[in-house]
Amino acid sequence: MGAPDTEPGRLITLEGGEGAGKSSQIDVVAECLRALGHEVVVTREPGGTRLGEAVRAVLMTEFDTPMPAMSELLLMFAARAAHLAEVIEPALARGAWVVSDRFTDASYAYQGAARGLGDEAVATLEHLVQKDRRPDGVLLFDLPVAIGLERAGRRGQGNRFDRETIVFHERVRAAYLARARAAPARYRVIDASAPVEVVRSQIRTALAAWT
Amino acid sequence: MGAPDTEPGRLITLEGGEGAGKSSQIDVVAECLRALGHEVVVTREPGGTRLGEAVRAVLMTEFDTPMPAMSELLLMFAARAAHLAEVIEPALARGAWVVSDRFTDASYAYQGAARGLGDEAVATLEHLVQKDRRPDGVLLFDLPVAIGLERAGRRGQGNRFDRETIVFHERVRAAYLARARAAPARYRVIDASAPVEVVRSQIRTALAAWT
Ligand SMILES: Nc1ncnc2c1ncn2[C@@H]1O[C@H](COP(=O)(O)OP(=O)(O)OP(=O)(O)O)[C@@H](O)[C@H]1O
Ligand SMILES: Nc1ncnc2c1ncn2[C@@H]1O[C@H](COP(=O)(O)OP(=O)(O)OP(=O)(O)O)[C@@H](O)[C@H]1O
Ligand SMILES: [Mg+2]
Ligand SMILES: [Mg+2]
Repeated sequence: MGAPDTEPGRLITLEGGEGAGKSSQIDVVAECLRALGHEVVVTREPGGTRLGEAVRAVLMTEFDTPMPAMSELLLMFAARAAHLAEVIEPALARGAWVVSDRFTDASYAYQGAARGLGDEAVATLEHLVQKDRRPDGVLLFDLPVAIGLERAGRRGQGNRFDRETIVFHERVRAAYLARARAAPARYRVIDASAPVEVVRSQIRTALAAWT
Repeated sequence: MGAPDTEPGRLITLEGGEGAGKSSQIDVVAECLRALGHEVVVTREPGGTRLGEAVRAVLMTEFDTPMPAMSELLLMFAARAAHLAEVIEPALARGAWVVSDRFTDASYAYQGAARGLGDEAVATLEHLVQKDRRPDGVLLFDLPVAIGLERAGRRGQGNRFDRETIVFHERVRAAYLARARAAPARYRVIDASAPVEVVRSQIRTALAAWT
């Protein structure tokens, strides 16, 4: 807990499909917030803690049989519980802003929608693990699936998710966009197909709404 | 799925604290059931699949900070979801009996009771992951905590759970016994402090009730 008069920080998440540019642009987000005088903690999911990185390694492993979608979802939330307890909540409590490369919207898009577990299963875990914690702002990096996969492919060795079908990635994209439409105050859709410089200026504009 | 006229198998679980003798006696359980003509699948939790064993390794790791109880619970159920999908449900469907060294009662005793997450959190996950699947019979290996820990200690290098406090293990024991009292038809309490031969005969008697 910070001093009693510390204003709590805010949680900003970067979301979007493979190759959208989240990891490339996260430092831009952090710099904008630091320029406003905030302490900024940059982190990612799955990961963000030792346990989270160990779980991430399990999630990226190809086993002899396909991982059940429910296992995937539970592993994501196991990592998230530690991420919240060890990194996110302490930072917010002392007034820092937390910028996370993916968070629970990804569980809705990937496991809830694309893997077909449904929103209700994700919402049950969100409630169990996060109580009332939700992102204060979500930057949704949106771009056509083909462009994202082409970019991700150029980055080299793919993972279990990169290698999914086009239909899978289309479901991810549609689910993200539906979530953004349902809560417009909390989401900003970034045209991630634009050149890096244009994406950067969209990010600055989006953040201005929340700062 | 087995042939339409295959009677489904049953799920028998062995539960109890550290050093109670579950792993030592599981083959006795399997032999009793095989002697009755059943196909028997012997398995364990956490584990039972490649994914489960990878998750088990994460669960047994000592990280730089203590693992949050909620992460522990979610990891257990992530492994369980795969165990059910890949091992338990297919075996039961073809008429085999499944004998598992620990199952969901352990989540209630360890994470729900001893770690203090409460029964409701465990029940939420049980419902999400198992639907209506519950053990048909639970052999609860009960013995004083001190004896169990002494036995487990003799076995050599301990794990994160062996090294917990006496109070922790007393909570585990009490929670297991309370569950057995609440559903007596489904549980048989074995006096696991008895000599191996006596434990063996208690197991045979207990199984007779369910076969
Ligand atoms: N606006 C852009 N125009 C062209 N290329 C881009 C743009 N943004 C990022 N890239 C490139 O696309 C590739 C993928 O970008 P990045 O790794 O940031 O995506 P990501 O959203 O983090 O993907 P993942 O979800 O797979 O981690 C990188 O090689 C990056 O340099
Ligand atoms: N009835 C018994 N009397 C004396 N020693 C026993 C008895 N049963 C088991 N042991 C010994 O106690 C030790 C622990 O037994 P075991 O590994 O089977 O326990 P466990 O219930 O599987 O424990 P854990 O939960 O830690 O896996 C072993 O060394 C075993 O040989
Ligand atoms: Mg990335
Ligand atoms: Mg054992």
